[in-house]
Amino acid sequence: MNRQQLIEQIKIKKSFLSIGLDTDIHKIPKHLLDFDDPVFEFNKQIIDATKNICVSYKINTAFYECRGIAGWQSLIKTFNYLPKDIFSIADAKRGDIGNTSAMYADAFFNKESSNLDFDAVTVAPYMGADSVKPFLSYKGKWTILLALTSNESAQDFQFLETAGKQLFETVLTKSQEWANEENMMYVVGATKGKAFADIRKLAPNHFLLVPGVGAQGGSLADVCKYGITKECGLIVNSSRAIIYASNGYDFAEAAKIEAEKVQLEMENELKIIGL
Amino acid sequence: MNRQQLIEQIKIKKSFLSIGLDTDIHKIPKHLLDFDDPVFEFNKQIIDATKNICVSYKINTAFYECRGIAGWQSLIKTFNYLPKDIFSIADAKRGDIGNTSAMYADAFFNKESSNLDFDAVTVAPYMGADSVKPFLSYKGKWTILLALTSNESAQDFQFLETAGKQLFETVLTKSQEWANEENMMYVVGATKGKAFADIRKLAPNHFLLVPGVGAQGGSLADVCKYGITKECGLIVNSSRAIIYASNGYDFAEAAKIEAEKVQLEMENELKIIGL
Repeated sequence: MNRQQLIEQIKIKKSFLSIGLDTDIHKIPKHLLDFDDPVFEFNKQIIDATKNICVSYKINTAFYECRGIAGWQSLIKTFNYLPKDIFSIADAKRGDIGNTSAMYADAFFNKESSNLDFDAVTVAPYMGADSVKPFLSYKGKWTILLALTSNESAQDFQFLETAGKQLFETVLTKSQEWANEENMMYVVGATKGKAFADIRKLAPNHFLLVPGVGAQGGSLADVCKYGITKECGLIVNSSRAIIYASNGYDFAEAAKIEAEKVQLEMENELKIIGL
Repeated sequence: MNRQQLIEQIKIKKSFLSIGLDTDIHKIPKHLLDFDDPVFEFNKQIIDATKNICVSYKINTAFYECRGIAGWQSLIKTFNYLPKDIFSIADAKRGDIGNTSAMYADAFFNKESSNLDFDAVTVAPYMGADSVKPFLSYKGKWTILLALTSNESAQDFQFLETAGKQLFETVLTKSQEWANEENMMYVVGATKGKAFADIRKLAPNHFLLVPGVGAQGGSLADVCKYGITKECGLIVNSSRAIIYASNGYDFAEAAKIEAEKVQLEMENELKIIGL
């Protein structure tokens, strides 16, 4: 899905919500454990209930890998069940030397190789340009580079002063030598509030993937106040607050209700910018 | 495998060689393609031929993930085939917020969950302490944190000046607040030569995992000159130069010959320090 198509979906659905399928087999309703693949069944019902309210699903690969082969199977089934007009994100935070990153790009972008072809994959910046470029070489795909993450210890390294700029700012500027608004987004945590204003000085038009609304405590209003652009420029993700809204038979309906609350807020924010 | 056991293995085998199983199905000898699982067959024969010469195998997860389920199956079979007295490394370069890193730790350290329990996993530092600590919470396991990587674009961020120290040096010092020599190692690329002397000032006793000897051009003599400690303190990895030494029926024997050359150099280095 390219940039224009994504913006179009945001307009149609009046939403820039991504739902994070951080599906933990120990947290899903007990009655699902009777299914052959409880995790897939959970995801399927969540997707059925919410697909018209969100523009993206973000699959956090850790929650699948931790179950070995069975988890990888749930991941592939879930990916194949995503509607075609949904922006699909593999939240994998990969990154390695060039020839290895090329393999990771195959893992998430090359259906013939891996049975997966996500629209986007999250990538860690520490190893620099040659760890990122293999992902960028896939036409029509997106690299979502970690810039300022939502966790508390983001401060350990991301805020370090490096030649007058904080490290996350250097990541934002340096990476624009390799990529552009059509093939790169940045992860910026919703917990960072006013930092969005600084980020918009360095990346005025890039889409930002914003985790941390919901369970992690980020505020959608703050994110929009400092981060929204005239084309929206935001994909805001919520995982636990939506998918675990209920632990009973009504889990999918409860997820839909939570997602609708967020979507309504988003609709209001989009009205303000005339989208 | 704990630190003392690892040092013991280095003494017994007169080797601190890790062989990287970066097994690319497109690069292995053609006759192996007749096997049900050509990648596992390749690894099995490499392991049989080299297990007495090396102290570690490093499995680069990207080369398996890129083949989806089939790749994950090859990975698990390969892991289960590793001798018990070998230090096993999942070179996965993971790292995410706390609850997600806990899932990645399960993926590589928790056999009941994933069928894998490597001795060590490589982790990316960008997200800070809470992205690393879940790996450290596994008793008897090792976190191998990226410090100074072997690729050219390591310079993009790792050498940035941050309050008088380069970023990789800050990673080395900061991370010692969370971990110690018994549960953390650092990745330092063999291509970095004299940087090992600086690193030893900050991490005098930690084991370093050193990729980049062989295909990437790093020199074992330089690594030892600046990086070896009285307990060795090095695990030097070679992948392509060993496993692809021949592309014919003799591939395993050719790999053994290449590995022996490196082991002989290592034996001489160990003699110098009296191990």
